[in-house]
Amino acid sequence: MFHGEPKEDDLELVEEDLPDLKEGEMLIEALYLSVDPYMRPFVSDRAKVGDTMIGEQIARVIESKNSHYPVGTIVRTHAGWRTHTVTSKLTRHMPELGDLPLSTALGVVGMPGMAGYFGFLEICKPSEGETVLVNTASGAVGSVVGQIAKIKKCKVIGFAGTEEKCQWLRDIGFDYAYNYKTVKLDEALTEAAPEGIDCYFDNVGGEFTTTVLEHMKTFGRISVCGTISGYNATEQPKGISPFPTILFKQLSMQGFIISGKWLDRYPEGEKQMAQWIKEKILQLCQKEKDFKNECTILSSKK
Amino acid sequence: MFHGEPKEDDLELVEEDLPDLKEGEMLIEALYLSVDPYMRPFVSDRAKVGDTMIGEQIARVIESKNSHYPVGTIVRTHAGWRTHTVTSKLTRHMPELGDLPLSTALGVVGMPGMAGYFGFLEICKPSEGETVLVNTASGAVGSVVGQIAKIKKCKVIGFAGTEEKCQWLRDIGFDYAYNYKTVKLDEALTEAAPEGIDCYFDNVGGEFTTTVLEHMKTFGRISVCGTISGYNATEQPKGISPFPTILFKQLSMQGFIISGKWLDRYPEGEKQMAQWIKEKILQLCQKEKDFKNECTILSSKK
Repeated sequence: MFHGEPKEDDLELVEEDLPDLKEGEMLIEALYLSVDPYMRPFVSDRAKVGDTMIGEQIARVIESKNSHYPVGTIVRTHAGWRTHTVTSKLTRHMPELGDLPLSTALGVVGMPGMAGYFGFLEICKPSEGETVLVNTASGAVGSVVGQIAKIKKCKVIGFAGTEEKCQWLRDIGFDYAYNYKTVKLDEALTEAAPEGIDCYFDNVGGEFTTTVLEHMKTFGRISVCGTISGYNATEQPKGISPFPTILFKQLSMQGFIISGKWLDRYPEGEKQMAQWIKEKILQLCQKEKDFKNECTILSSKK
Repeated sequence: MFHGEPKEDDLELVEEDLPDLKEGEMLIEALYLSVDPYMRPFVSDRAKVGDTMIGEQIARVIESKNSHYPVGTIVRTHAGWRTHTVTSKLTRHMPELGDLPLSTALGVVGMPGMAGYFGFLEICKPSEGETVLVNTASGAVGSVVGQIAKIKKCKVIGFAGTEEKCQWLRDIGFDYAYNYKTVKLDEALTEAAPEGIDCYFDNVGGEFTTTVLEHMKTFGRISVCGTISGYNATEQPKGISPFPTILFKQLSMQGFIISGKWLDRYPEGEKQMAQWIKEKILQLCQKEKDFKNECTILSSKK
């Protein structure tokens, strides 16, 4: 379906007539759709032509023959990129948001927030005073990781793709923020972490990670959340073999897919994230802040 | 000092006069010297011309001004490749061997055995019924890993470099043993582990490991004990980037250096290894079996 960099004509906007509701079903109308990096590799192998693009959404029940979900209920489910869906089963519970924007259920109180929360705390196991590196640092996952690292009293180094994003990272407490497009990674790490890195939360992979490994401390921990640098590659990326460095620095490296690993612990993570946001200990990432509490960006029901 | 494949003239046999013993010192005479793969990378960066080649030895005290170690005491220490050494401090305790050959204190009841014992059990965390892969399987470390995996009721696949070694692996209980020089790794793994590998104990690294990663099961665990394939390389080995596979299979990979990680737990591991050997649950690797209990291969004191 997709090959290399996604093109506009890889996707097609399709209208369809929806069936009448059967007993137990409901009609949901999307309020927010998620667009996450994981989608790119997940549709490479699995999607067939004609499949609906995958993804989670926040939606409102607008018709219902399911007594558990009366009209007006706000739900979260993997309905894909659809404005309207007839369904009888939701793939996720809706977290308790209080006054937080609904969109956060797809962001910091959703999958990306849980990836940052569990993927960082459970795999990197940060301690006070340690040095933490995160890339794609201004995104929904990276900004959570960096801020939790500050809560845990670590020194935090972030990499992002514009000076504006880097300034925002400094504003929310990152000790160092670099534009990976304009600095030399090796030099930046030598400056920010002359003593080496204890915890590395990786969303990027590839050459970036190969370079970072050389700056890890002995017994460093690496959480592999993404390998974005290779998602559009048309052949397998190659690079310097990391195994000798993993051996001689006695590093731990663990990959994870949040929904496969800690789904049963979402309520615990969601509660903590929502609380930190309410207490203003943790800031929403820039895109999330721009969202109003509800919007009507999607076309209406056919 | 060393560059690429070690050559005979990289090393020189040097005779020296030993000083008289001071109070607290002893003169030890080597009975067994260890030759382990780790030595190659460890002398690449650290050794200067004129340094004694590193290594542990089993030795007998032949003169003593140290009341803790009277003449005749058998000791274990990092004296390097020397026949005779004046020393006041030993780097390791001597394990309790009972009737076992003294050489085992440098083998299965020594560093290699501890690497196999802790490096496999603590990092791979094998469960009954799981599939375990180990390479350099007929060596001091690999044969321990494979046999402990059998004790833990796992299916065990080993790779070694001759048919003779492979036959020995089958004799001691390995479910599959392959000569990596004559089989195609990918095909062998498809045959032996069609359902994938849960635990991989790696002594080799490089392309071998890149191929194995494609055969790991989700949530597989990889213990990186060695990367022998690259120890003589004159430039950094390159290969397919493993990070996407580590991510999407949610693998854990951990490097370790046994003396840096579990030195304080040696007594526990030594006791268990010695017991398994005495109970004939675990076999000595072939080279160890050939050793007599003492030998006089080394030149006498000058």
